[in-house]
Amino acid sequence: MAKLYFHYSTMNAGKSTVLLQASYNYRERGMDTYVMTAGFDDRAGTGTVASRIGISSDADTFTSGEDLFAKVEKRLLDGPVACIFIDESQFLEKDQVWQLARVVDDLNVPVMCYGLRVDFRGELFPGSAALLALADEMREVRTICHCGKKATMVVRMGPDGTALKEGAQVQIGGNETYVSLCRRHWRDAVGHQ
Amino acid sequence: MAKLYFHYSTMNAGKSTVLLQASYNYRERGMDTYVMTAGFDDRAGTGTVASRIGISSDADTFTSGEDLFAKVEKRLLDGPVACIFIDESQFLEKDQVWQLARVVDDLNVPVMCYGLRVDFRGELFPGSAALLALADEMREVRTICHCGKKATMVVRMGPDGTALKEGAQVQIGGNETYVSLCRRHWRDAVGHQ
Amino acid sequence: MAKLYFHYSTMNAGKSTVLLQASYNYRERGMDTYVMTAGFDDRAGTGTVASRIGISSDADTFTSGEDLFAKVEKRLLDGPVACIFIDESQFLEKDQVWQLARVVDDLNVPVMCYGLRVDFRGELFPGSAALLALADEMREVRTICHCGKKATMVVRMGPDGTALKEGAQVQIGGNETYVSLCRRHWRDAVGHQ
Amino acid sequence: MAKLYFHYSTMNAGKSTVLLQASYNYRERGMDTYVMTAGFDDRAGTGTVASRIGISSDADTFTSGEDLFAKVEKRLLDGPVACIFIDESQFLEKDQVWQLARVVDDLNVPVMCYGLRVDFRGELFPGSAALLALADEMREVRTICHCGKKATMVVRMGPDGTALKEGAQVQIGGNETYVSLCRRHWRDAVGHQ
Repeated sequence: MAKLYFHYSTMNAGKSTVLLQASYNYRERGMDTYVMTAGFDDRAGTGTVASRIGISSDADTFTSGEDLFAKVEKRLLDGPVACIFIDESQFLEKDQVWQLARVVDDLNVPVMCYGLRVDFRGELFPGSAALLALADEMREVRTICHCGKKATMVVRMGPDGTALKEGAQVQIGGNETYVSLCRRHWRDAVGHQ
Repeated sequence: MAKLYFHYSTMNAGKSTVLLQASYNYRERGMDTYVMTAGFDDRAGTGTVASRIGISSDADTFTSGEDLFAKVEKRLLDGPVACIFIDESQFLEKDQVWQLARVVDDLNVPVMCYGLRVDFRGELFPGSAALLALADEMREVRTICHCGKKATMVVRMGPDGTALKEGAQVQIGGNETYVSLCRRHWRDAVGHQ
Repeated sequence: MAKLYFHYSTMNAGKSTVLLQASYNYRERGMDTYVMTAGFDDRAGTGTVASRIGISSDADTFTSGEDLFAKVEKRLLDGPVACIFIDESQFLEKDQVWQLARVVDDLNVPVMCYGLRVDFRGELFPGSAALLALADEMREVRTICHCGKKATMVVRMGPDGTALKEGAQVQIGGNETYVSLCRRHWRDAVGHQ
Repeated sequence: MAKLYFHYSTMNAGKSTVLLQASYNYRERGMDTYVMTAGFDDRAGTGTVASRIGISSDADTFTSGEDLFAKVEKRLLDGPVACIFIDESQFLEKDQVWQLARVVDDLNVPVMCYGLRVDFRGELFPGSAALLALADEMREVRTICHCGKKATMVVRMGPDGTALKEGAQVQIGGNETYVSLCRRHWRDAVGHQ
């Protein structure tokens, strides 16, 4: 009985490490996995899941508007898959989350999604909202704020080292950096109430 | 170190029972709790948290537009509160969830919210979306579909016994009934893909 | 795919309430459950699961040396059971926990056990040790110490109001009372290190 | 408010990866950690935490009879520690688990233990029994059986490829291999009931 999992966290908690270890566990037992991550450019299928701790793996990519149920069905023509892993799942579209739910329910393949819960403004990502609504199991990948408390929020730091309060949810190619914080320190940093 | 908790589930899982037992545990130890539930009419402060299994408790109510940080601060003038419990928390407004987060962070009082994750159309409630974004800990209150699998969805049944597919998220005073289902049986019932 | 669950906690957390609500959820859907609790006397089959909050249910009893696999098989002759609930499961014998594991694996009926983790001396109960070794899923039923922290330990108070440090693990018919505490306050009460 | 954590699993689930990632998260934020693993020989302090996926770290070692409270106090003379990590914690002695509980309660340093739940005979390890009794939070590191279900048991395979049923709990320097299985396949492999 397959399930749809959402492993959520803030930035730099080690989500990709958890994904790569779980995929490794299947492959070590001789079972194949199908790993996907978000693709932000035109090159189809050339992605990487990489972890800050020094491990990585090739991955297929999902892109805007793609039908992931059809994509998985096509992949299954090449042979059985014991588990599907989706990195950067905050970038899934709502329809794509439903397509993955149908993979679970109708094709009986477990789908494990890893992604951010909220962006630097404290707002849910679209993919995260859909996963938080539909996931069969939700598990937190934890990390810590500089104060030692659990970090659940993230700030986007501008070039001058101060936290940005507005801007696009996704920023590609900029020179911002992200820092994970507990809610109280996030509120201090962005001046929230 | 107080936290904001979200105990989520679908209908008829026993959320109110869990809330009442947790509040009872505090009071049995001589610590006071502050219980609130959603108020849908004009009578301020006259609410009840009741469980199908046969236990209930008086409760204060929260209503649209109310500042819950101020409401808690006012309540604290009457004496200390060890824990705040919010039933029907899917009806909280986003601002109210932030106000409760500030109760946790700034007043150091734990807040335990109990509510539905999705409505009968499979959409997040506003309060649930905000709690899924901000809660420090999320815990599922489980129940089962007629097939024995975990139920995570709910259908609203019309007077003729068929599942409704559209309508207002909140329906008061109608004669609909709600049935909790697993995702696959929910999809069958509402004709979703 | 059935599982063996262990819902553990210290005294007075509301384990029986959680059990009764879960059993109620099944019965409300028209599925039968089989509820057992520990029997300490000679009267077979006359037990009660009762919660301090004011709800209760009749229950069958399990006793020392009984084969619970055979007992469940016998019960199934009277009709199907969607879930088996065991209260006071700290009193199960190790062999009985294995028998329940076989009920799960071979008869495909889920078994939900509710019990204490440690006794007043901080030692595992035999049934809890076996369940902590074998359970497929472990979930904590939480309660609080008088200091507001989570309670995980319990003291047995003698008639003079001081914590007992030695004695039988199970005391029936005495006039001791039990108080749940966090580990630090338990250590203070019993003079542990 | 520090806590004692027990991350339990069967063999080859990736416990060491989870440990190394968590320690990395602290160090990346400029906070020091203290990593220990079981030492089985006479060379003090020369250990390694290594993961099958290809990451590793030097570690101090704990050995039989050592006072871990004193060991941590000594370490703290060299500077503050934000979190203590213990690999192979199934080999802790019961007294050592209590010493770590005192580190948590009295020195306010969180301690995260990673270890096996049961040995190849299905019996709790001493360290695991003590941690399952005393841990403030228990989290499972999951892996899968060859059948795709969660593995919770482990078999020790002899040189001839059959599962061993008896023998010492700890075997050093032999040429056995370990395979993680679900309970049903473990029972088949070892001929249990």
